[in-house]
Amino acid sequence: MPINPDAVGATADPVEQSWTSKDALLYALGVGAGTDELQFTTENTADTPQRVLPTMAVVLMLGGTGALREIGSFNPAMLVHGSQAIELYGEIPVEGTVSNQGTITGIYDKGSGALVVADVVSTDVATGKPLFKNTTSLFIRGEGGWGGDRGPSTDATPPERAPDHVVTYATRPDQALLYRLSGDRNPLHSDPTFAAKGGFDRPILHGLCTYGFTGRALLHSLCEGDPARFTSMTGRFAKPVLPGEELTVEIWSDAAGEAVFQTKGGDGRVVIDTGRCTFA
Amino acid sequence: MPINPDAVGATADPVEQSWTSKDALLYALGVGAGTDELQFTTENTADTPQRVLPTMAVVLMLGGTGALREIGSFNPAMLVHGSQAIELYGEIPVEGTVSNQGTITGIYDKGSGALVVADVVSTDVATGKPLFKNTTSLFIRGEGGWGGDRGPSTDATPPERAPDHVVTYATRPDQALLYRLSGDRNPLHSDPTFAAKGGFDRPILHGLCTYGFTGRALLHSLCEGDPARFTSMTGRFAKPVLPGEELTVEIWSDAAGEAVFQTKGGDGRVVIDTGRCTFA
Repeated sequence: MPINPDAVGATADPVEQSWTSKDALLYALGVGAGTDELQFTTENTADTPQRVLPTMAVVLMLGGTGALREIGSFNPAMLVHGSQAIELYGEIPVEGTVSNQGTITGIYDKGSGALVVADVVSTDVATGKPLFKNTTSLFIRGEGGWGGDRGPSTDATPPERAPDHVVTYATRPDQALLYRLSGDRNPLHSDPTFAAKGGFDRPILHGLCTYGFTGRALLHSLCEGDPARFTSMTGRFAKPVLPGEELTVEIWSDAAGEAVFQTKGGDGRVVIDTGRCTFA
Repeated sequence: MPINPDAVGATADPVEQSWTSKDALLYALGVGAGTDELQFTTENTADTPQRVLPTMAVVLMLGGTGALREIGSFNPAMLVHGSQAIELYGEIPVEGTVSNQGTITGIYDKGSGALVVADVVSTDVATGKPLFKNTTSLFIRGEGGWGGDRGPSTDATPPERAPDHVVTYATRPDQALLYRLSGDRNPLHSDPTFAAKGGFDRPILHGLCTYGFTGRALLHSLCEGDPARFTSMTGRFAKPVLPGEELTVEIWSDAAGEAVFQTKGGDGRVVIDTGRCTFA
C-alpha cells in the first residue's frame, strides 16, 4: 500500500504567498460578487474601502500543502476534495504576504479509500501573527483497507425546522474559467476532454468556488457583510456542481454566533453538507 | 486656451509594458469570451494552444500615451474617447514585452471641442519589430474654437443592403468590474456616485470593452477565429453602453479582406459607428 499511515505529524518548510488588491478583486468576481458588493469588487468607489472576502483564505494557502508529499505516492486522478474548514483570526488585508506552514493531522482508513487531513497555518509576515488556518481533507479512492482508524464521523442531517435564511445565487457558464484565475488551473474545471476522462459530461465547478459563493451567503446573512465578524466556516463537498447551476444556501442560526448550513444545486440535491459557521 | 495646437509631432520616451498568459486570459473573459472560446480563455486545454484576442492590443499600450502631456492642461472630466484603431503586424504572443512609443499626430478644431489624435507604436522587445499600432482619438469638450483645421470627416452610413453577418452577444451586469482588471480603473465604470456626477444613471461600460466584444464578432465572422488573419480594426464610439446590455454587431464584407461594421446596443441605437476591419 503506497499510502504511509505513519505520516501523521509530518510538516513541510513554510512557503510564503503574497497577494495584491487586484488578486482580491479577481477572487471576489470569481465567487460571484458583483455590482451589489463593490466593497469586494472595487478599490476606488467613494466611501467604500476595499475589503476581502473571508473565504479568500482558501486560495492564499495553496503553496502550503507540501507536507502532503509525506503521505507517499498515489494516483492523483483518484484524489477527491473531501471537506474544507477555515478559521480566521482577523480580517484579511487587501494586500499582504503570509507564511504557510502545513502539517498532516490525520490519515484515516475509510475502507474504500484513505482520508488525509492537513492543516495549513498562515502567518502574516508583516505582524508575525497567525492570520488564518485552513483544514483540508482529501479522499484518496482505492487507498483504504489497511485496518486503520476510521476517524470521526459527522452528522449531515440539518435541523428539521425551516432555515432562518435562504440565499440563492446564479453561477455563470464561464464561472470556472474566471475562478481558476485565482490559482487552481486543474483542467477538470475547464477542458471538456479532460473532464470526460474523469467521467463528467462537461467540466465541473471547483468545489472551492461553490464554497466561496456559500461564504458570501453566510457573510451577508449572518455578519451584515462585515468580514471582521466572520470567524470560521467548514463544509463537506457532497456532490459536484456544473458551471451555470443555481446555488441555494440554507442557513440555520442555532445559537448566538453559530450557524448550520447546507448548499443545494439547481435540482435541489445537496452539494455542500455538514456546514458549520461561527461569527462575532 | 490651454490646449496647444502646435503639439502635433510631440513624442514621449518609450515605455515598456509586459503581459503574461494570465493577463491574456483575464482580458478574454473581460470582453465576453467563455467556454466556446477555450483557445482564448484557457492555457491547458487538450489540442488547444492558448492564443490572444487581437483587440488586446488596446490594453497593452496604456503606458505609451505620455505624449498627450504635450497638448497642455485641460479638465479631464471633459475628455471623451472618440475612436480607436488598431493595426496588427503579427499575432500577439501569449506573453511578452512591448516598448510603446507615442506620438501626437493631429489636433483638430471641432468648434465645440478639440479632437486630439495620438499613435502608439508597440515594438516587441524580443524581436525588435513593431507588433501593433494603436491610434486613439480623444475629444476634449470646450477646448475648440481657435480657428484651426477641422480635420477629416468620416461617413457613418453603412451599406443599404442587409449585413452579411449579424452577431449578438450578451454583456453581464458585472462586465465592467471584470474588464477593468485589464487596466482601466476609471470609476466612471464602477462607482455609481462618480457616474452620477458625469450625468449617468449608473456606471457605463468601457468603450474599449464594447470594442473587444465587437472584435470577437469580427474575428469569428471574418477570420474563422484565427487571430493571425486579423490585421486591422477601427471604430468610433457613438453612444455609451450600460453593463448588462446586449450588443449586436452588423458586418458587411464589401471586398476581399475588407469589411464595414457597426455595433448596436440593446435598444438598436448605434454605439460604435464608422467601423472598418481588414483581414487576411
